[in-house]
Amino acid sequence: MTSAPTLQPKFLPNRHDLGVVAVGFSGGQTKAGVDAAPMALIESGLIQQLEEDLEFKVTYDGQVHSYTDIMPKDDPEYRNMKRPKSVSAVTRAVSEQVYEHASKGKFVLTLGGDHSIAIGTISGTARAIKERLGRELAVIWVDAHADINTPETSESGNIHGMPVAFLTGLATEENEETFGWIREDQRISTKKLVYIGLRDIDRGEKKILREHGIKAFSMYDIDRHGIGRVMDMALGWIGSDTPIHLSFDVDALDPMWAPSTGTPVRGGLTLREGDFIAECVAETGSLVALDLVEVNPSLDVHGASDTVRAGCSIVRCALGDTLL
Amino acid sequence: MTSAPTLQPKFLPNRHDLGVVAVGFSGGQTKAGVDAAPMALIESGLIQQLEEDLEFKVTYDGQVHSYTDIMPKDDPEYRNMKRPKSVSAVTRAVSEQVYEHASKGKFVLTLGGDHSIAIGTISGTARAIKERLGRELAVIWVDAHADINTPETSESGNIHGMPVAFLTGLATEENEETFGWIREDQRISTKKLVYIGLRDIDRGEKKILREHGIKAFSMYDIDRHGIGRVMDMALGWIGSDTPIHLSFDVDALDPMWAPSTGTPVRGGLTLREGDFIAECVAETGSLVALDLVEVNPSLDVHGASDTVRAGCSIVRCALGDTLL
Amino acid sequence: MTSAPTLQPKFLPNRHDLGVVAVGFSGGQTKAGVDAAPMALIESGLIQQLEEDLEFKVTYDGQVHSYTDIMPKDDPEYRNMKRPKSVSAVTRAVSEQVYEHASKGKFVLTLGGDHSIAIGTISGTARAIKERLGRELAVIWVDAHADINTPETSESGNIHGMPVAFLTGLATEENEETFGWIREDQRISTKKLVYIGLRDIDRGEKKILREHGIKAFSMYDIDRHGIGRVMDMALGWIGSDTPIHLSFDVDALDPMWAPSTGTPVRGGLTLREGDFIAECVAETGSLVALDLVEVNPSLDVHGASDTVRAGCSIVRCALGDTLL
Ligand SMILES: [Mn+2]
Ligand SMILES: [Mn+2]
Ligand SMILES: [Mn+2]
Ligand SMILES: [Mn+2]
Ligand SMILES: [Mn+2]
Ligand SMILES: [Mn+2]
Repeated sequence: MTSAPTLQPKFLPNRHDLGVVAVGFSGGQTKAGVDAAPMALIESGLIQQLEEDLEFKVTYDGQVHSYTDIMPKDDPEYRNMKRPKSVSAVTRAVSEQVYEHASKGKFVLTLGGDHSIAIGTISGTARAIKERLGRELAVIWVDAHADINTPETSESGNIHGMPVAFLTGLATEENEETFGWIREDQRISTKKLVYIGLRDIDRGEKKILREHGIKAFSMYDIDRHGIGRVMDMALGWIGSDTPIHLSFDVDALDPMWAPSTGTPVRGGLTLREGDFIAECVAETGSLVALDLVEVNPSLDVHGASDTVRAGCSIVRCALGDTLL
Repeated sequence: MTSAPTLQPKFLPNRHDLGVVAVGFSGGQTKAGVDAAPMALIESGLIQQLEEDLEFKVTYDGQVHSYTDIMPKDDPEYRNMKRPKSVSAVTRAVSEQVYEHASKGKFVLTLGGDHSIAIGTISGTARAIKERLGRELAVIWVDAHADINTPETSESGNIHGMPVAFLTGLATEENEETFGWIREDQRISTKKLVYIGLRDIDRGEKKILREHGIKAFSMYDIDRHGIGRVMDMALGWIGSDTPIHLSFDVDALDPMWAPSTGTPVRGGLTLREGDFIAECVAETGSLVALDLVEVNPSLDVHGASDTVRAGCSIVRCALGDTLL
Repeated sequence: MTSAPTLQPKFLPNRHDLGVVAVGFSGGQTKAGVDAAPMALIESGLIQQLEEDLEFKVTYDGQVHSYTDIMPKDDPEYRNMKRPKSVSAVTRAVSEQVYEHASKGKFVLTLGGDHSIAIGTISGTARAIKERLGRELAVIWVDAHADINTPETSESGNIHGMPVAFLTGLATEENEETFGWIREDQRISTKKLVYIGLRDIDRGEKKILREHGIKAFSMYDIDRHGIGRVMDMALGWIGSDTPIHLSFDVDALDPMWAPSTGTPVRGGLTLREGDFIAECVAETGSLVALDLVEVNPSLDVHGASDTVRAGCSIVRCALGDTLL
């Protein structure tokens, strides 16, 4: 049972205003089904809970977007990227949707979809925060993976493994049609990025993380220090005066709790740790946007409902639900 | 393999004297089967282990009580409570049974039954401790739930969600037949109550906990600090000069380890954490009574034996079993 | 994805030299199947991963040894030990195999087999280290069990419960055919032995551990302090100037992660904790040898592949694989 949060957000004018964007998109990777996640999350009662239990005034256009009208007919590989024009077009549209809410001072919740959509969500939030407050945005990326491959370092060519590279400017493009639309005010600094939960990093990614001094807490760090101290360190790195966008890939959780996802990796967060991370970020009062991505209800027949429930739990915790 | 504990208890004259009460009662809630738990625990060898491995001299009347002779024929709802006269009559009888052992200085182990029976066990222990030692009793309540609803705040009307309200005097009754029998010397103070493992609290309960400044460690606290520091804080709050009654609801454990219980809630204690709590309380030398409740062998076909084994493990740890 | 370790080992001349010994032996206990573990581990790609991902130059004779030619025809119980001559002969041969690699300054990885084979592996490493460096060997024994019964304290007579007694000289024998071959320079000191993960200790073993002041971290200690601090304490006890042999019994892991083993015990290490232990030991730069034992692919149909994967993961972590 839930009580409405009492915390006054630091970077939002009204704690009750929530914009929801439902992105039914799976084109950043190759497995079908992740586009069905927003509907599964909503059908399990998520938005209603946010309204009734957590007392949010939700702005939601009532549809899971599939962006079929802007999908290019022809979309060959380019610079090793699969479906580059489709992902570029969709994330550009998502960026506008998120910006629309964020520029009005609303908290923005985006339900994915694969993790490529974060190119849209974070660019949208970053731009709105810069305009509204003149501040840089910090990002907490909770994931088994770093998703920071450039098109050149990626082995698979799947763009859901590249969003952080495009968002930080480690990967750039001139061509409008393939992410050239991302402007400077839509990017984030590698210094304002913190990873939590990493355990399956590509060789090229390890190099990038090291060379750019990116703050990353792997499962090893969580075992060494406990999730309590890791969150202290993660939030200490960001500081208390910076708005935070939390991008939560459900595969950060161990497959024992969230099996129904495209690239599960053993040795992950417990559901308790996942909820705890979300609660800690919520407690800062600095959170301005949340993505929940990579729930794929079609991949594990028995585990789909567990995974959806885990996703809902993460969202509720990030939006201020507390145990006591 | 087990060694007998060597610790001398602080508030019991003889560390070997153990009274066992088996309460086959399910009337504090609506699911049948929890009354079968005492037999399942005993048939799995629990009492024999306590005698042989832990060297207790067990006083046990050899029967699982069902209290059919004192059950009222007519038992309509009253003040929103379901089966109020039945639960009142049974807990009053349990209180006498527990008092009978405790007044002789025995450690009392009660095998439930649903958690409503703690109205009986704790009132019996509190009275005996006051008489024997002139001291107040502290209670450590390990549970996913706070069980502190008053008849008026309860949504379900199930009395297994109210025992702490009656035991602390937050709920009172004039009528002997409906808990009016609880006298002042059978109550405990809200200041001597500590919760561990909470994660599913009703809105009214949150208010009660806050207003009365009741010490409560939720799963969030366990994740933040680790179970080791939480036990240090919990036991520090009680102090070393106070007898302790441990009331352990098996639903405090995560359903992964104890699925066969009436109101399972995800995100709970691991079996290791449950055992650890019991071991830490045992180590204080202050423990004088233990309840193990809400094992329901009929609810999860595959998980029943796991749940029974988990229950036995908790009991053994609380009674002094150690790994090294 | 994996990067090659960059750490320079303290007690090995060349970080790339690795000797592998595959011991298909199950005679230290009574369940068939543990002799099939080396082949299962190798077929799942372990050696190839060590070569390609971790850049080891592997010396491996290409065969899983079954030692049939040296197995005695007649092998009656003796001093309560089952198959004493067989286990003695096999471990003596293993000792030579391990010594052969270790004396050349190679890291030695032994894939068991039941845990009795550690009589061979540790005696071989201890002798080589004494010869090469004039130093004593420390042993970290990760196990649900202490394996320190003497023939006289053992209830089962299975020698896989006795290796530490023979290795520390707590059990001795004159007869060459039954472990009389173990010389002083092949033994280790009880002061250089550290246990991690204990949770099922025989009564006689508890006495031995206490009387000899052997450093042991049970699951209780891991819950109290967290695995991070336990490793600090374990490695602090050994010190930074002592070569380490890590003997890892897969039953240290909880059956949830490693069910396919001869004597599973609930309440064990998570896979994350197991990997963490191996990573911490690897980080010291002091590790010179590793045993992975008691994987029994035949015992749990569904869990065999999980158990094999867990074993591979432990080996990779101990050999320098890191998440970041
Ligand atoms: Mn991701
Ligand atoms: Mn991921
Ligand atoms: Mn309860
Ligand atoms: Mn409960
Ligand atoms: Mn062993
Ligand atoms: Mn073992």
